[in-house]
Amino acid sequence: MLMSANKPLVALENATEFHARHIGPDAADEAGMLSVIGAASRRALIDAVVPANIKRGQAMALPAVATEAQALAELKALAQQNKVLKSYIGQGYYDTLTPGVILRNILENPAWYTAYTPYQAEISQGRMEALVNFQTMVTDLTGMAIANASMLDEATAAAEAMTLALRMGKSKSQVFFVADDVLPQTLEVVQTRAKPLGLTVQVGAAADAGKSECFAALLQYPGVNGDVRSLQAAADAVHGQGALLIAAADLLALTLIKSPAEMGADIAVGNTQRFGMPMGNGGPHAAYMACKDEYKRSLPGRLVGVSIDVHGAPAYRLALQTREQHIRREKATSNICTAQVLPAVVASMYAVYHGPAGLKRIAQRVASYTAVLAQSLQGLGWTVVNASAFDTLTINTGGKTDGILAAAVAAGMNLRRAALDCVSISLDETTTRADLQALLAVFSGGKAVADFGGFEKGVASLIPADLLRSSAYLTHPVFNRYHSETEMLRYLRGLSDKDLALDRSMIPLGSCTMKLNATSEMIPITWPEFANIHPFAPHDQLKGYALLNEQLTAWLCQATGYAGISLQPNAGSQGEYAGLLAIKAFHEARNEGHRKICLIPESAHGTNPASAQMVGMTVVVTKCDKEGNIDLVDLKAKCELHSQSLAAIMITYPSTYGVFDTHVKDICALVKSHGGRVYVDGANMNALVGVAAPGEFGGDVSHLNLHKTFCIPHGGGGPGVGPVCVVADLVPYLPTHRSGGYVSETAIGAVSAAPLGNAAVLPISWMYCRMMGADGLQAATEVAILSANYVAARLADAFDIHFSSNVASLKGGGVAHECILDIRPLKDATGVGAEDVAKRLIDYGFHAPTLSFPVAGTLMVEPTESESKFELDRFCDAMLAIRAEIAKVADGTWTREDNPLVNAPHTAEALLKAEWTHGYSREEAAYPVATLRRQKYWVPVGRVDNVWGDRNLSCSCPPMSDYEA
Amino acid sequence: MLMSANKPLVALENATEFHARHIGPDAADEAGMLSVIGAASRRALIDAVVPANIKRGQAMALPAVATEAQALAELKALAQQNKVLKSYIGQGYYDTLTPGVILRNILENPAWYTAYTPYQAEISQGRMEALVNFQTMVTDLTGMAIANASMLDEATAAAEAMTLALRMGKSKSQVFFVADDVLPQTLEVVQTRAKPLGLTVQVGAAADAGKSECFAALLQYPGVNGDVRSLQAAADAVHGQGALLIAAADLLALTLIKSPAEMGADIAVGNTQRFGMPMGNGGPHAAYMACKDEYKRSLPGRLVGVSIDVHGAPAYRLALQTREQHIRREKATSNICTAQVLPAVVASMYAVYHGPAGLKRIAQRVASYTAVLAQSLQGLGWTVVNASAFDTLTINTGGKTDGILAAAVAAGMNLRRAALDCVSISLDETTTRADLQALLAVFSGGKAVADFGGFEKGVASLIPADLLRSSAYLTHPVFNRYHSETEMLRYLRGLSDKDLALDRSMIPLGSCTMKLNATSEMIPITWPEFANIHPFAPHDQLKGYALLNEQLTAWLCQATGYAGISLQPNAGSQGEYAGLLAIKAFHEARNEGHRKICLIPESAHGTNPASAQMVGMTVVVTKCDKEGNIDLVDLKAKCELHSQSLAAIMITYPSTYGVFDTHVKDICALVKSHGGRVYVDGANMNALVGVAAPGEFGGDVSHLNLHKTFCIPHGGGGPGVGPVCVVADLVPYLPTHRSGGYVSETAIGAVSAAPLGNAAVLPISWMYCRMMGADGLQAATEVAILSANYVAARLADAFDIHFSSNVASLKGGGVAHECILDIRPLKDATGVGAEDVAKRLIDYGFHAPTLSFPVAGTLMVEPTESESKFELDRFCDAMLAIRAEIAKVADGTWTREDNPLVNAPHTAEALLKAEWTHGYSREEAAYPVATLRRQKYWVPVGRVDNVWGDRNLSCSCPPMSDYEA
Repeated sequence: MLMSANKPLVALENATEFHARHIGPDAADEAGMLSVIGAASRRALIDAVVPANIKRGQAMALPAVATEAQALAELKALAQQNKVLKSYIGQGYYDTLTPGVILRNILENPAWYTAYTPYQAEISQGRMEALVNFQTMVTDLTGMAIANASMLDEATAAAEAMTLALRMGKSKSQVFFVADDVLPQTLEVVQTRAKPLGLTVQVGAAADAGKSECFAALLQYPGVNGDVRSLQAAADAVHGQGALLIAAADLLALTLIKSPAEMGADIAVGNTQRFGMPMGNGGPHAAYMACKDEYKRSLPGRLVGVSIDVHGAPAYRLALQTREQHIRREKATSNICTAQVLPAVVASMYAVYHGPAGLKRIAQRVASYTAVLAQSLQGLGWTVVNASAFDTLTINTGGKTDGILAAAVAAGMNLRRAALDCVSISLDETTTRADLQALLAVFSGGKAVADFGGFEKGVASLIPADLLRSSAYLTHPVFNRYHSETEMLRYLRGLSDKDLALDRSMIPLGSCTMKLNATSEMIPITWPEFANIHPFAPHDQLKGYALLNEQLTAWLCQATGYAGISLQPNAGSQGEYAGLLAIKAFHEARNEGHRKICLIPESAHGTNPASAQMVGMTVVVTKCDKEGNIDLVDLKAKCELHSQSLAAIMITYPSTYGVFDTHVKDICALVKSHGGRVYVDGANMNALVGVAAPGEFGGDVSHLNLHKTFCIPHGGGGPGVGPVCVVADLVPYLPTHRSGGYVSETAIGAVSAAPLGNAAVLPISWMYCRMMGADGLQAATEVAILSANYVAARLADAFDIHFSSNVASLKGGGVAHECILDIRPLKDATGVGAEDVAKRLIDYGFHAPTLSFPVAGTLMVEPTESESKFELDRFCDAMLAIRAEIAKVADGTWTREDNPLVNAPHTAEALLKAEWTHGYSREEAAYPVATLRRQKYWVPVGRVDNVWGDRNLSCSCPPMSDYEA
Repeated sequence: MLMSANKPLVALENATEFHARHIGPDAADEAGMLSVIGAASRRALIDAVVPANIKRGQAMALPAVATEAQALAELKALAQQNKVLKSYIGQGYYDTLTPGVILRNILENPAWYTAYTPYQAEISQGRMEALVNFQTMVTDLTGMAIANASMLDEATAAAEAMTLALRMGKSKSQVFFVADDVLPQTLEVVQTRAKPLGLTVQVGAAADAGKSECFAALLQYPGVNGDVRSLQAAADAVHGQGALLIAAADLLALTLIKSPAEMGADIAVGNTQRFGMPMGNGGPHAAYMACKDEYKRSLPGRLVGVSIDVHGAPAYRLALQTREQHIRREKATSNICTAQVLPAVVASMYAVYHGPAGLKRIAQRVASYTAVLAQSLQGLGWTVVNASAFDTLTINTGGKTDGILAAAVAAGMNLRRAALDCVSISLDETTTRADLQALLAVFSGGKAVADFGGFEKGVASLIPADLLRSSAYLTHPVFNRYHSETEMLRYLRGLSDKDLALDRSMIPLGSCTMKLNATSEMIPITWPEFANIHPFAPHDQLKGYALLNEQLTAWLCQATGYAGISLQPNAGSQGEYAGLLAIKAFHEARNEGHRKICLIPESAHGTNPASAQMVGMTVVVTKCDKEGNIDLVDLKAKCELHSQSLAAIMITYPSTYGVFDTHVKDICALVKSHGGRVYVDGANMNALVGVAAPGEFGGDVSHLNLHKTFCIPHGGGGPGVGPVCVVADLVPYLPTHRSGGYVSETAIGAVSAAPLGNAAVLPISWMYCRMMGADGLQAATEVAILSANYVAARLADAFDIHFSSNVASLKGGGVAHECILDIRPLKDATGVGAEDVAKRLIDYGFHAPTLSFPVAGTLMVEPTESESKFELDRFCDAMLAIRAEIAKVADGTWTREDNPLVNAPHTAEALLKAEWTHGYSREEAAYPVATLRRQKYWVPVGRVDNVWGDRNLSCSCPPMSDYEA
C-alpha cells in the first residue's frame, strides 16, 4: 500500500489538528446547518452578510500553523528565556505559595475558570459565595464597612478611590495629595487618571498629608520602603478640611498591625496578590477597595450581596447593579466592568484555607525574619534606613548600590533599587533561613556569616508597639472550618457544583463570546517561567515576556489591521480609556485640545460613554435606525454641528445589535472629514478576524477583548485583557510605564500597575493564534457567523429576530455572529418576558443569553464557533420548547400567574414538596425535554429577589443561622 | 514585641504544616471525640486497644519532616537526576501525547482519581461507562467477543492468558509455547508464573508454533523486532492439537492490520499505554485481555456489564462477580483484584477523542515514517533486518552496535539493543520529520542527510498487503461524537458528576483506607522527569528513579520493620504472590520443597488463598473464635498435623475483623516452631505505622498496599502498588528483572512487566512520607484508630458492633482502625438488610461502607485519619437516622415491602413522578436530614439488577436506542 498515494504525508501530519478541537461543527454538521439557513456554502453565507467593501485585502500574515504539541514546545522555549530569580523586590508583588488544592481545583479547573460573570444569580451561587468570602476578608482585615468584589490592580483601585473621594468629600479642592512612599506604579497611574479630569497630584512626605489643601490624601501602609507608621495624624488633618484619607494597605501586614479604619481612613485599597496568586509579571491579581458604609452606593466595581430567593432562602446576587456603568451611561464616573474574579476567588480561598491563625503565623514569620535580617545587617555594619518594618528593609548602600544589586543577581536574587544610595529587600511567605543566609552573604561580600544569632535568641519585631493589632478578624465559621485538605477540596467542589459554566453547557451570551478555553492554552500560564517572575525584574530576565509581547502584538496587528498595540490595559474598559486618551493626546499635540466632543450611537455598550467621560470628553448621542444601523442623517447633522470640536466617534462593529452596517466606511470617512478620529470598539471582533480588519476599513483606534475573541477564559468575571490598537500616527500615544522602565516622549503614561498588565494570561492568546494560524482564525470567524445564522434560522419561525441584514434568501435574514430574539410581543400577549425565558432556560440546563441588552425585553444569543451542532440543536430545541410553553399560557392552558416560566427556575426542593399546588406537573417543571432525565443541572436556589437584597444590603458572610430556617 | 518570646521561630516556621492538612480532626475535635469514647487521651486509647507486647521498640528513623513546598523542591531535584531522552526503544512502551483535556480533567482531577472501585454500581455509572468504552475499544480492535476492564500490565496479562488457556483448551500438554520475538519482559513474567504451576515454557520461532505439542502458544503481533506476520498458520497448527493461540497485539497497529480474531486467535492481550498514558518508567498503564465468547465466564479480572435498574433503565455494573477471587477463595485460579482503572479511562478517552479516523491517521503516519526511515537507512547502506514493519525497524549494525547506541545517546535519543549485532528503532505518534532526520544523522556518522526523499515522493508502507485490515472498528457513536474539546470536556464532566468520589464525601470503606490523596502528592507524577521516561532506558538516565526507590524502600523498611523491600509488584495481589514465592524459594533452597501447606484463617481476604494456589501451595483453613481472633487450639492442632509440610501461615493484622489479636506474637512463634514462615497481609497497615511493625512482632513477609496506607489514590479501581517486604534471610528471594538489567542468583524472577512496576505513582507515597515524617505517620495511625473508635462509640447504642477488644471502659468496646456493624438482627426483625442500608446511604450522600465482607450481612466502616469530625458526625448522623427509619419498619409505620430503605436509592426522576404511591413522602425519601436540602448528590440510576445483567451479559457500549425507552 502506497499510503502517501491516497493519504499524503502532510495530511497524516495533520498540522491543523487544533482546528477541529476548537471549532465545534465538523464538515457534515456545517452542510446540515447551511441547508437549514438556505446558503449554498459557507463562502456564500459570508458574502451575503459581510459587506463586500470592508473585506480584507489579503489574508493575515501569521506563522505556519502549529499542532498543540508543537505550540507548547515552542512556547516553552520562549518561556525559558525568562530567568526566574528569587525576588526580594517587593513594591506590591511578592512570592507566594499557592496551596495545591487551590491551584488544581480553582486555577486549573474549568468549572471555575470558564464561568461567566454572575449576572444570572441562580446559577452563580458558588462563585458568589467565594466573592462574599473575599469581601468579608477585606472588610475584616481593613476594618472597613464594605468592600467590593475586586478591582483590576492596586494602582487603578487607587485612581478609582481618588475619584470616589472627589465625589464623596466635602472639600472643594482639586488637589490630590499622594505620599512620596506610595508604590511608584500607583503614583504613575493616578497621574495618568488625574490629568484629563483637571486634578492636581501633589506628592509630599506622608507626614505632610493634610497640611495643605486637598480633597483627599493617599498613604501607603506600610510604605514602599518599609516604614510602618500610624495613619491617625493624617486622617485627623485631612478630615479637618473635609477631605478624605485613602490608605493603600497590605493585607498580610494587616493581620499584625492596626487596620486603616481603626486609624480613621475613609477608603482602603490594595492588592491581594500575595494571598496565593503568583506574581505573573504583574498580573492578573485581585486588587481590593473598601470604604465606609456611607459611600457604599458610590463604590465602583462589582459588589456581591446577600438576598433571598422566592422561597425565602438566603441567596447571593450582584448588589446595587443600578450603580453599574452600563446603566448610568453618560453619568458614569467609572468605566469598570470586568473585575478579577478568578484571582479574587484564589485569594479568598487562601484565607479560608489558612484561617486567621494561619495567616497570622505567616505574617509573624515574615516579620520575625525581617527583624532578624535587620539585626544581622546592622551587625555587618550596614545602616537600615527604616526604624519600623513589617516585611521590608531599606539599606543605605553608601554608594555601592550597583555593586550590591549585581552581586545579588549573581547569587540568584533581585533586590529593589530604592534610591541612588539605597536598596530595599522585601521578604515574603516563601523566605527561609537559608534565603536569609544567602542574602547576608551578598552584604558580607560573599563570606558566609558564621554566627547568625537571631534565629536562636529571638529578635524583637520592628512593628511599633502602638501599631500592634488587637482587633479580631476572620471570625466567621467559613474561615475556621476548611483547614484540612479534604474539607477544602469538598468545599471547592461543592461551590463549583452550584454553578453552570462552559464545562457543562453552552453559554450563549451575546457580546461575550463564550468560546472554548482550550487546555493547551491554559497549561502554560502556571509554568514557573511565566508565573513566578516579578514585573520589575531587570529587563534581561524578562526576555521571554518581551518576545511574547512582540509576537502577540505582531499577530494582533495582522488580525486588526492596526500599526501598533499595547497589551498593558488589563480589561476592555482600560483599553477603551487608553484609546480615547491617545486620541485626546493626538488632538492636544496638534493644538486642537478643544476637540472634546465624542459621538456615541445609542446602541453602544455603556462602557463607551463612561470612558469618554473619564478622559474629559463630552458625549453626544447619535441615533440608530430601526435596523440597528447608525442613522446617517442624524450623524451627518451632528458632525456638522460639532465640526470644530469633534474629537471622535465610538462605534461597535458589527454593531451591538449583531449586524454588519453596510455604511461603516462612509461613517468613518464622514467623521474624519470633520477632523474626528474613529474608535471601533473591538467587543465583536469574533465576527471579523480574518474577514475584515477595523484598521483597514476606517478605524483609528480599537481595543480588543482577549477574554472574548482570543480565548482567555472569563474566570467568573475576570481577568480580562483589553489591548489598545492604533493606526500609525497614534502609535506615539500608546501607554508606557516609567516604573517598568518603558518611557517615550509623547505617550499618555501608564494605565495599569504593571507594564504588561495581566501579563500571565497572555500565553493563552498566544497559543490560540499559534494553533489556529491565519486559516484557522478565519474559519473560526466564519463558523461563528454560520452558527449565529443557524440559530436565527432555526428560531425564526418561533421568535422575532430583532435585527438582521434582511437577506431574503437566508432564513433568519442574515445576522452577524449573534442574534437578538425579541420577547416583547410575547410579553404583551402572555405576561411571560425575557427574564422568565432566561430563568426557564436554567431548568433546561442552559445559561441565559444576554438579557435586555442592547434592547430591553430581548435576548441576545451568541453561539460562537466552539459549540457543536449537537449543542446548538439542544439549545434551539430548548428555545422552541419554551416557545411552546408560552403558547400554553397564551391559549389559557396555564395562567399568567402560575406557569413553569414565571416560576422558573425550579429547585429540586420546591419540586419535592409534599403539596403540589401548581397548574403544571412536577415533571413538566423538571423534565420539559426528555434528555434532561439523563443529565440534569439542579439549580441551588429559586429566583432571587434583587429588590429585597438592595433594600437590606449585606455584603459579607451571612451568619450560619440564616441557613437554619 | 518580642515575637520569638511568645511564638518561637520554629513554631512560626511550622515544619509540620502538612499534618493538619492530612489529618482531619484538630486538637479540639480530638478532645471531643475522646470524651465520647470515654478515653482520657489519645495515648490512653491506643494503649487500651493495641496489645502492649507488639508495640514498636523505637520510633521510625525518617528524615526530619518537610513542608509541602520543601518536599516538592526536594523531589524535583531528585527527579532531575533522571535524564529524559527521546525514546525509540519500543519494546512495549512508546512516547505518546496525552490530550490536555484528558490530562487535566481525568489524570489530574480528584473526581476521577479519588473514586473507589465500582462495587456500588449506582454511584459509579460514570467510570463504568468509561470502562465499557474501554472494553468496546478492545473488542473492536482485537475483533474478540469480550474484553475485561483492564489488566495490570501486558506481561501479567500474558501469564493470566496462559492459565486461562490451560483451563479452557482441550490439550493435556503442560507445555506453553512462546515465540522468540515476544517482549522479553513478557517471557520473563510468564516463566516466573509457569514454574510453580509445573508448566514448561518452550521458546521457539513463531513459525514453529504448534509444530510440537503444547496447550497454548503466545505470539507477539507485530513482533518485538518489527515483523508483521500473519497469525493464521499458528492458529491452525495449535487448534489442530486442541491448543489455543494467544496473541499479544499492539492496539495502534490493529487500526491498520488484521485483527487477531480474524486470523483465529483465541485470546488477545496487550498494553494500551500508547493511548495517552505517559511511559512513566513502566507504569501504571492499562493492559487488556480479550477472548472468545465461550471463555467469558472464566476471564480473569473485572468486567463491566450493562444491566437495568429497578425502573428498567440501562445501568452499568460489575458483571459476573461470582467469578471474582474473593468469592471463589480456595478454588481461585487468579488472585487479580485491583485493575488499572484510571489508565484504562485515559486510554478509552484517548480513543473517544481521536475516534477511528484520528487513530488511523496517527497509525498511518507512524507506518509511513517507518517506511521512509527504512528506505533512507537502506539508502545509507544499512541492512534492515525485518522485511515487514508497522512502527519498528531492526538494523544490522555489522558489529557497530555499541558505537551507534552511544552516538544516539550523545544526540539525545535511545535506541534498543536488539541483539549483539542489531539495534531496533520504534517510532510513535510523537515522531516528527525532524526526529527522523536526527535519527538518520546517527546512522550517517553525524552528517546531515541532504536528499531525504521519502517525504515528498511517498514510500510504500511495509505492512504486507494481505495483512491490511478491512474490518470496521469504533463505529459506536461514543467514538464519533466527542471530537471537539468542548464536547469532550462536557462528556468527562458529565460522567464524573454521576459518580461519588472522595472529593464530595467520605468513603468509609473498611479494609480500603480511603484517605486524603493530597495535591502535593499528585503534582510530581506528571512532571516530565518522572512521566516521560522508558523503563529500559540506560540505568544512568534513571538515577532519579533509583534514588526514589532507595529512599522510599528505606522509609518503608522503617515503617514495617523489615530488612528488604521490592516495589515491583503493581498491585497487592502481586505483592502477595511474590511474597509467597519468596517463602517457597526459601524452602526449596533448604531442600524443603515439600513444605507446601499454607494455613489461612477463615477471616482472610480471598486473595490470600488465591495467591497460595498460584504458587502451588495447598491451603488449609484455620478457624476463628467469636471475637474474630484466630482459634489457637485449632491452629496448634493443624500446625502439629502438618508440621513436616508446613510452608507458611497467612494472617492479616489487625485482622479483617478490625481487631488487634493479642496473641499474634504467640501465633507467629507457634508457626515458626513448626518450620513455617509467617506472612502478614499488610492490608491493614494503616492501623500499625509508627505504632507496631510486622517485621518486629513476628512477620517474615508482608505486602503493603501503597494505594491504601500510603496515599496513592484508588483511581476508581487502580493503579495500586503492592510492595513485598521481607526479613533478612528472605531478601535474596525478592523479585528481580532481567529485562530491566536487575539480576541476582537466588531471586524468584520478575513478577511485573517493568522493574519498578507502577513506578510513576511512587512519588505519591514518597511525598506522603516526606511531609508527614515519623511523628506525622504515627499520628495518622493513632487518629485513624481514634476515628474508628469514635464511630463505634457513636453508633454502639444503635447497632451491634460485631467485634471489639471488649475494653469495658471504652464505649464501643475498643476497635482497631475500622468497625463492623451487624445488620443481621435488624434484617431478621424488619427485612431491611445491609444492602438496603448501603443503598439508603446513597440518598444521604454517602458511599457505602464495605458490604458483607468479611462477614455477610454486616457493614465494615473505616473512617481513616483524614476525615474531619464534622464529616464523621455527618456520617454517624446518617447512620442513626437510618436506624430510626428501620425502627419505623419495625413498628409498622412503614411496611417491609415499601419503605425508603428497600426502595433506595431514589433518583430524582422517580421522586418526581406524577403519581406517588409510596407509604412515605417524597421529602422523606430525598431529604431525610436537613443538610441535604443545601447540598445533595442525585444518584443517576435506581438500584441495579445484577441478576438480569448476568443473565443478559453485554459488556460493550449499548446502542443509543436503549436510552430512548
